[in-house]
Amino acid sequence: MTDFVLTPEEREKGLVFAPKFDAAGLLTAVVVDAADGAVLVVAHMNAEALAKTLATGKVHFWSRSRGALWMKGETSGNYLAVETVLTDCDQDALLIRATPAGPTCHTGARACFYREVVAEDGGVVLRCIDT
Amino acid sequence: MTDFVLTPEEREKGLVFAPKFDAAGLLTAVVVDAADGAVLVVAHMNAEALAKTLATGKVHFWSRSRGALWMKGETSGNYLAVETVLTDCDQDALLIRATPAGPTCHTGARACFYREVVAEDGGVVLRCIDT
Repeated sequence: MTDFVLTPEEREKGLVFAPKFDAAGLLTAVVVDAADGAVLVVAHMNAEALAKTLATGKVHFWSRSRGALWMKGETSGNYLAVETVLTDCDQDALLIRATPAGPTCHTGARACFYREVVAEDGGVVLRCIDT
Repeated sequence: MTDFVLTPEEREKGLVFAPKFDAAGLLTAVVVDAADGAVLVVAHMNAEALAKTLATGKVHFWSRSRGALWMKGETSGNYLAVETVLTDCDQDALLIRATPAGPTCHTGARACFYREVVAEDGGVVLRCIDT
């Protein structure tokens, strides 16, 4: 991590890691299962959560609703062991390939994305799917 | 979509689609390639972008940097044809399985996640990877 100010070209093409936190000081983090690429959870990281994730090899997030740093799995034991971390073109999102110790969603589902948005009777409803 | 106010239980377990936009009026949207699940792009949707995505079957985003609605591919032709849309437990993120018409990233890469974050010489740098 660095506080360097990069040109857009440097940010997109360069090899300097300069995460671009938003106005609330957050990055978007997408965690996928390293085994099969399934998207497990989408959450946010502030600078501290990112630093702890990189330092410990376990995914940490910033909870917007609770206003607190948390290690995923700190209560449930279902932590996410980091395999690789990727950044996107403008460095405001991370893609983390991780090995989950158990179900990732707090509902007990393997992944948080267990409902499909479907058009029905002129409206839009949800339908449960397997994750 | 609905403006109903849901209990947390209803939001997480129910079948009413009630997307939870953040303070800036945005959801996080993760688009994966329907063919193999590869994460192509992470971006944001406001209510209008979501509505247009569902109505047209082509992914629309809200650009935070430009302050504008855009259809992915409107300039490049590399649009994203929606196959399925999933929502997460608290309905503040969407996972969209789509068929890309070409490279998704504006840099010409297949996906925006073409650099890995790696520890090196006591610091953290980026390394280019194939997408």
